[in-house]
Amino acid sequence: MNALLTDLYELNMVASYLRRGMTGLATFSLFVRGLPKQRGFLVAAGIEGCLDYLQGLRFDEDEIRYLGDELKFPQRDLEAFRQFRFTGDVWGVPEGRVVFAGEPLLEVTAPLPEAQLIETYLLNRITFETTIASKAARCVIAAAGRDVVDFSFRRTQGIEAGLDVARVSAIAGFEATSNVEAARRYGLVAAGTMAHSYVQAFARERDAFLAFAQDFPGRTTFLVDTYDTVSGIKDAIEVIRKLKLRGRTGVRLDSGNLLELTNRARRLLDAERMKHVRIFVSGGLDEFQIDDLVRGGAPIDAFGVGTRMGVSADQPYLDTAYKLVDYAGRPVMKLATGKVTAPGRKQVFRRRKPFGDVIGLFEETAPSGMEPLLQQMMVRGRRTKAPAGVSDSRALCEADIAELPAAVRRIRSPRGLVAPPTEKLQRTTEQTRERLLSRFGPKRSR
Amino acid sequence: MNALLTDLYELNMVASYLRRGMTGLATFSLFVRGLPKQRGFLVAAGIEGCLDYLQGLRFDEDEIRYLGDELKFPQRDLEAFRQFRFTGDVWGVPEGRVVFAGEPLLEVTAPLPEAQLIETYLLNRITFETTIASKAARCVIAAAGRDVVDFSFRRTQGIEAGLDVARVSAIAGFEATSNVEAARRYGLVAAGTMAHSYVQAFARERDAFLAFAQDFPGRTTFLVDTYDTVSGIKDAIEVIRKLKLRGRTGVRLDSGNLLELTNRARRLLDAERMKHVRIFVSGGLDEFQIDDLVRGGAPIDAFGVGTRMGVSADQPYLDTAYKLVDYAGRPVMKLATGKVTAPGRKQVFRRRKPFGDVIGLFEETAPSGMEPLLQQMMVRGRRTKAPAGVSDSRALCEADIAELPAAVRRIRSPRGLVAPPTEKLQRTTEQTRERLLSRFGPKRSR
Repeated sequence: MNALLTDLYELNMVASYLRRGMTGLATFSLFVRGLPKQRGFLVAAGIEGCLDYLQGLRFDEDEIRYLGDELKFPQRDLEAFRQFRFTGDVWGVPEGRVVFAGEPLLEVTAPLPEAQLIETYLLNRITFETTIASKAARCVIAAAGRDVVDFSFRRTQGIEAGLDVARVSAIAGFEATSNVEAARRYGLVAAGTMAHSYVQAFARERDAFLAFAQDFPGRTTFLVDTYDTVSGIKDAIEVIRKLKLRGRTGVRLDSGNLLELTNRARRLLDAERMKHVRIFVSGGLDEFQIDDLVRGGAPIDAFGVGTRMGVSADQPYLDTAYKLVDYAGRPVMKLATGKVTAPGRKQVFRRRKPFGDVIGLFEETAPSGMEPLLQQMMVRGRRTKAPAGVSDSRALCEADIAELPAAVRRIRSPRGLVAPPTEKLQRTTEQTRERLLSRFGPKRSR
Repeated sequence: MNALLTDLYELNMVASYLRRGMTGLATFSLFVRGLPKQRGFLVAAGIEGCLDYLQGLRFDEDEIRYLGDELKFPQRDLEAFRQFRFTGDVWGVPEGRVVFAGEPLLEVTAPLPEAQLIETYLLNRITFETTIASKAARCVIAAAGRDVVDFSFRRTQGIEAGLDVARVSAIAGFEATSNVEAARRYGLVAAGTMAHSYVQAFARERDAFLAFAQDFPGRTTFLVDTYDTVSGIKDAIEVIRKLKLRGRTGVRLDSGNLLELTNRARRLLDAERMKHVRIFVSGGLDEFQIDDLVRGGAPIDAFGVGTRMGVSADQPYLDTAYKLVDYAGRPVMKLATGKVTAPGRKQVFRRRKPFGDVIGLFEETAPSGMEPLLQQMMVRGRRTKAPAGVSDSRALCEADIAELPAAVRRIRSPRGLVAPPTEKLQRTTEQTRERLLSRFGPKRSR
């Protein structure tokens, strides 16, 4: 069904573990190693998709046949694959909450083969959705209260990616999406104007504006830059006056010097007593351009944000890891250069005011004034509650971001918050390192 | 079914066109406006997915209901949507062929509403798949004959993206993929080694190596850097000697200074008469790091290439456009600043030796020694032939790349080939511009 959505090495390892009866409980921790330069915080996302996957995880007969016929797994492995289910416990950070480097977004405790097979899928979903949610949240911060609309569908990395981007950008605070299927699927607001081709399909620009306004009187935004932006604005004004358009009416500018042209548009509209006509801009925007326009005082009511948000253009992935931290009751860690991970099952504790996190061991009690961030999401392979909806996750996101220090929220060169380990976690890390170094460390004498 | 996989404005425009009987034949051209700085050429991909979509395009009753109940399209629009099919002709560049800026990858000629609705989907597929294929082709060039394997699945932008990346990287010349479902679906070679967690799940590294080699004697690659790379290589050597491993045996290095460590590994292996043991490297690689390693003379047999290729990290999208170039028999173009497009239906003509393209009008005959690049792929909404397989597209890609000038293939600061317009296209462009400027140009006197 969905069990081949993984890397081959996971299947090899699972087969090996099962043959050897290595089915002790393992905990894997999924976290981001470090924050990118232009990210002061991340917004957790992708967790709900992971839970759906885990609950439905199994091999169907077509998949079993492929593994036998093509990949030459022997019969005993195939039989084990046929019985395979995910029976583990999952703790995770609710979607929409702010997270930082080193903090587990998911912790999976399950028999070793189960916890291993799922690595690829879990990393994929959390990496992608957290990458986009974090970028989108910065666009919302930069817009400083103005509406932001998702226009990314045409250049996301695939169709499914476009649906996911619409969902996570809504969690991050976007008002609407141009993506109709995403709006239907996730109950989002669908939004859209007209394309240049519409204007071009009529003999004159004004004819196009008139036709569109007659067809969609309640929701007319005129795209004014097909031939010349200022003439376009004047044509829009004529049509608005002629049809006495009220309600949601706007002009959209998609090219040129937007700071200059939006000021020009506002003056032209205001001179005609058209203060109700909104100014909408689009075209290669992300949080950096939005920030410049807002700081420059551009009279903009809404931003259409496309490709750069939809692929997180300046940072299209995160350095995520899914690491074994505990196996059969003993903490585990990796010593490879520059990739040291803290051992043991963990919990993150958060203080809201002043905002701050610490990373501790799972069994620790929360320090005074702090609350645990990871929640139990699956018990023995079953979800503990209904999937979170977009509006709940959006509320969590908004609340966390509201408490962030200004330097963390900053658009340019933000400062990432560092969550220190608790004393207990620090002690465990030291002890594990020493135990491993004494056994596996650089053997300089050889 | 799939008709809501579009932007809302496409539906608005389609409804408006249909109400007004604006169903004249339109041609839209899908092309890349300019080559990114670090791309000397692009590899066309995504075309097959577009054809599948077009052939299956329709609104089902659930979608119609959503458009009526939620988006408030009136009954007459819903009836028109219910009847909607794609009945147009499509010309396109076969997947795997090399293309350059300004060259149409697809040209769609269909009644205006049909040609408009499909914009979002077509742009999405072609932009994404061409972005990845182009990046992957550069990795293959940099590897200079060594094997390159797709390891990207865990950090592609979604699960579907991972399947697509495996397919298009195979077209671009990758030998294998770690993605099991992609291997099954597209008939690719599945490849995989072991993870650090496997090594950690055993009491000692050597125990892990021994177990894995016993379980997979024909395909053993030892991951040697979990604790210390040099000790890891020595442990691998012991196990290879003990089990007398022949066949496909290798060591994989995933961290550290790969130039230095692979040389060390080769010397250690050669000293033990293990020349058959291959050296495999991975970890944050793309064409730039591969190029450095190859030029540095690192004794590497195969590269595992992951995230940076799978999201095209340095350039995660292309500046694609889908532009109306002809409507109801008259050439059309847009004049907005910096976004001028050439009007009219087009064809690209290619010479193989010396390699060079020109862009002409559709009806022109090929200049002597040149062949048309765009082929007819759909007639009246039906495919003209069976979908191209990966191996056919891969052969086209390899043949085109073999003919490219060295400066175009270059990894760093390549020179993009410029396809000039034919005289006839140039004339049409001038005439159309003048016609439009006289009607819509900047009206400075106002």
